[in-house]
Amino acid sequence: MPNPTAAMLVIGDEILSGRTRDANMHHLAGKLTECGIDLKEVRVVSDDAPAIETAVKDLSSAYDHVFTSGGIGPTHDDITADCIARAFDDHIDIRDDARDLLATHYAKQGHDFNEARQRMARIPDRATLIDNPVSIAPGFTLENVHVMAGVPSVFKAMVDSVLAGLTGGAPLQSVSVRIERGEGDIAGPLGKLANAHADLSFGSYPFIQNGVFGANIVIRGTNADQLDAAAQTLAQLFPEDT
Amino acid sequence: MPNPTAAMLVIGDEILSGRTRDANMHHLAGKLTECGIDLKEVRVVSDDAPAIETAVKDLSSAYDHVFTSGGIGPTHDDITADCIARAFDDHIDIRDDARDLLATHYAKQGHDFNEARQRMARIPDRATLIDNPVSIAPGFTLENVHVMAGVPSVFKAMVDSVLAGLTGGAPLQSVSVRIERGEGDIAGPLGKLANAHADLSFGSYPFIQNGVFGANIVIRGTNADQLDAAAQTLAQLFPEDT
Repeated sequence: MPNPTAAMLVIGDEILSGRTRDANMHHLAGKLTECGIDLKEVRVVSDDAPAIETAVKDLSSAYDHVFTSGGIGPTHDDITADCIARAFDDHIDIRDDARDLLATHYAKQGHDFNEARQRMARIPDRATLIDNPVSIAPGFTLENVHVMAGVPSVFKAMVDSVLAGLTGGAPLQSVSVRIERGEGDIAGPLGKLANAHADLSFGSYPFIQNGVFGANIVIRGTNADQLDAAAQTLAQLFPEDT
Repeated sequence: MPNPTAAMLVIGDEILSGRTRDANMHHLAGKLTECGIDLKEVRVVSDDAPAIETAVKDLSSAYDHVFTSGGIGPTHDDITADCIARAFDDHIDIRDDARDLLATHYAKQGHDFNEARQRMARIPDRATLIDNPVSIAPGFTLENVHVMAGVPSVFKAMVDSVLAGLTGGAPLQSVSVRIERGEGDIAGPLGKLANAHADLSFGSYPFIQNGVFGANIVIRGTNADQLDAAAQTLAQLFPEDT
């Protein structure tokens, strides 16, 4: 059987103006190759509704999977979710499951769950959510299109979430541990922990927030008890930073 | 009057497999923004004739300019030139002007101008050549499509050649000086020379060849005598490396 085919759609004026260098294409290309999915085409379009809708429809009908990055944040020019809904004639509004995830997250962080942030809970009716262990606001899959964030650390985490489902096997669960230490300090103990838990996968998604270096360590596996145990062990390794 | 619009077409399996990270999109995006040309779309396709031809036709009819990178080298999978000719119903073969440029270059370098290298002189009948001061093998412009190499240093030099013509003004000429020294050693003297010749432009295209660090310095201007004088001065600044 030939490999499944895929296309990527990168959405964002900042890439086309040269202000930002796209990092997600190279990452996705490598990941798909590892999984035996053939990336056949990439398109980059601006934050322009007709351009996004046309590209999504073209790519969705030509390839088995379409992966998008960008345009699902809280600002007025984040129009990707609405464009995808229109491309597939689906209704879109703030959806309860996504809103609950975000409300819980912002309450825990002590941030206001304001109107802009609620935009990130706009999900088409027929879509399934894509887990975002890094910053919670979910992506979604509608038909064969996987809609993900443009921020590289979030994009990477979402790609891992999607590919875990596409490549078959038992459904994966995840826990996330936030560690406020440079990745260089985390790498050694994390490597030992990963060696000791061969049936779990460990992903590190670094961040710099308000001048603080850190990483969200996402542990994935099929057994919730194992995950919790590994997360607790990890947190105990960095008692002052978690 | 609105800005002219442009699209870019990146051709190469090595980008889509994740083996190589594309560097040309970010470079072209920045240069077009500087020139007031709006880059509206980028596509990346594999070394596959129907994919290349379809993309070229689509983009050529939708935008004022199309810039391609990749697939014009000496190997069997370098099929871009033939695809562009087919897309525009033009005849293509080894063309005398391109063959003469390459024959002279390889004779000077003491390399055999073999059949593989002669492939790089395949140019559509109606095309105009794009100057390649770095490695001589020319790109070409056919209708509104500018066909350039994928190697980043050559791509950059060709973009400069094309944009000099698009933005109007007197036609530019160029001379190239090859200096076998690290760019860090070249930068200081080159900066002073550029300051002393305000009506010439100086581009530096670094290379590593057989373990030797160096750069091709391309000087562009409208006056051939000025160019020759500046090139001689530059060569005298690095007597042992040119």
